[in-house]
Amino acid sequence: MADHFADHLLEKIAQKKSPICVGIDPILDSFPASASAASRRQGDSLDAAVDDLFQFCQKILEIVAPHVPCVKFQSAYFERYLWEGVEAYYSLVQYARELGLVVIGDVKRGDIGSTASAYAAGHLVEPPFAEMDEVAAPDAITVNPMLGMDTLEPFINSAKSLNKGLFVLVRTSNPGSAALQDVAMADGRTWSEALADHLRPLTEDPAMVGSSGWSAIGAVVGATQTHTIQSMRQRLPKSIFLLPGYGTQGATAEMTRAAFIDGRGALVSASRSILYAHRTPKFASQFGDDWEKCVEAAVLEMKQEISGVVGS
Amino acid sequence: MADHFADHLLEKIAQKKSPICVGIDPILDSFPASASAASRRQGDSLDAAVDDLFQFCQKILEIVAPHVPCVKFQSAYFERYLWEGVEAYYSLVQYARELGLVVIGDVKRGDIGSTASAYAAGHLVEPPFAEMDEVAAPDAITVNPMLGMDTLEPFINSAKSLNKGLFVLVRTSNPGSAALQDVAMADGRTWSEALADHLRPLTEDPAMVGSSGWSAIGAVVGATQTHTIQSMRQRLPKSIFLLPGYGTQGATAEMTRAAFIDGRGALVSASRSILYAHRTPKFASQFGDDWEKCVEAAVLEMKQEISGVVGS
Repeated sequence: MADHFADHLLEKIAQKKSPICVGIDPILDSFPASASAASRRQGDSLDAAVDDLFQFCQKILEIVAPHVPCVKFQSAYFERYLWEGVEAYYSLVQYARELGLVVIGDVKRGDIGSTASAYAAGHLVEPPFAEMDEVAAPDAITVNPMLGMDTLEPFINSAKSLNKGLFVLVRTSNPGSAALQDVAMADGRTWSEALADHLRPLTEDPAMVGSSGWSAIGAVVGATQTHTIQSMRQRLPKSIFLLPGYGTQGATAEMTRAAFIDGRGALVSASRSILYAHRTPKFASQFGDDWEKCVEAAVLEMKQEISGVVGS
Repeated sequence: MADHFADHLLEKIAQKKSPICVGIDPILDSFPASASAASRRQGDSLDAAVDDLFQFCQKILEIVAPHVPCVKFQSAYFERYLWEGVEAYYSLVQYARELGLVVIGDVKRGDIGSTASAYAAGHLVEPPFAEMDEVAAPDAITVNPMLGMDTLEPFINSAKSLNKGLFVLVRTSNPGSAALQDVAMADGRTWSEALADHLRPLTEDPAMVGSSGWSAIGAVVGATQTHTIQSMRQRLPKSIFLLPGYGTQGATAEMTRAAFIDGRGALVSASRSILYAHRTPKFASQFGDDWEKCVEAAVLEMKQEISGVVGS
């Protein structure tokens, strides 16, 4: 197994023949009825809610692990269940790693100096505590760079010393992102382009680049704008792109094409279209109440769609 | 007690005769020796570390509560102790509120749509679970707006319905912030100025403005640049400014002057210069090993300095 994060991720992508990341966004109200029995019975019980959440996520991980190289846990859906949700998050990270998955923690943290170091310690470092045998930190996390490149340094230092990865938010996929990220600067670049240009030397630091030629510092680039992906691909040629927005957010396989270089260097992420596939009529009519089969069918369909773009 | 967040905060500021916020940044390595006995004895015990952290923060809250209106908990220093740190965070938020303090959760969250709603649920809503009698959510949180104004909406909706507050990161105080936040756009404004202009209508929504005339949507503005504070004050006339960087980060009382309008509308925050005052030679030489007295002396000194700017 490769030590370097990017090498390791690309190896897993090659093994699974698919650059897909399943986003773990557990939303109780969207769960299949059979997966939310405890919390529906005990409406205001935190323990019941977290039990349902944990078991649903465990099952999802087991279903997708044979088919995809990577999962991404969305921290917000765990944090809403306070510390018990956070405990479930770390336990599930561990479980996903035991299943051989590369794990991204979608935490979007960002802060200055010593505070960023504390975030890196909590989110990238394997818990250094005697009590912790069933928990692990993710292989990579997402970070928010708005506060400046100096605020990424503590995260980069941790990633470097631990052989872990980062995905820096560069351009997001939501409608309102344009007003702040796509805005033209005096020199003609958009703000996100300037951000990418500031980020490039950090991604190309030889200590961050693996033997594959790819950097452990990747970028999150909204998959809904092809021209944006092209511009970012030119500016960050060594960064693996994490492309959210596939499925529910409206991006298509075709739109992701510009992120790949010779079939490599991008990871297409889908969350709700996979996790809640039991709500998609074509899967529901085929598999009835068997939500697990719906999830598997949705993963296999996405895999097929993406392989049409990157080859397989 | 006023219901509206800004009215309530201004009332507390008037009561305590000081617009000061003490930042709760618990860093074990900086603790006085007597406050970190358990964790020093049991180096790799999470329980011992969190016990020390909890007790130190409790004591800090008790020392500062008679003197200041507000505290700000820096989430990163709790998250680094995983879910046990997060549990301590919520318990301390509750304790601070029992002591009559206005509580800001410095979480700097930001994400799209339903994910932002989940963050708002976890960080602003009083825990709606049967098991939760000793925990509370903060009165306000900090949020990161990089993803766009649409991503602030779920936070604003929660704040509106709960009578809580937000502090939106507009311009930070770290050296590297200039390259992304102070960069000139095609229309001559800096990026942060454009951000402030996008934010203004949200802050001036009549539903967000209290009877004091101030908005429940405040802004975080780095206190180390006077000209920036002036520009932001013009663009966000109804927002209370949270000014970090006082003390350790090098801002002086004089620099904060531009944030105030007739002595109101800003909250000056200091963290390490207060919490770790036992390391400041003048306090150490005066009070010896009595770190609690050092903390109190540092708060009173800061109060004096700020009163010279705003009057008292």
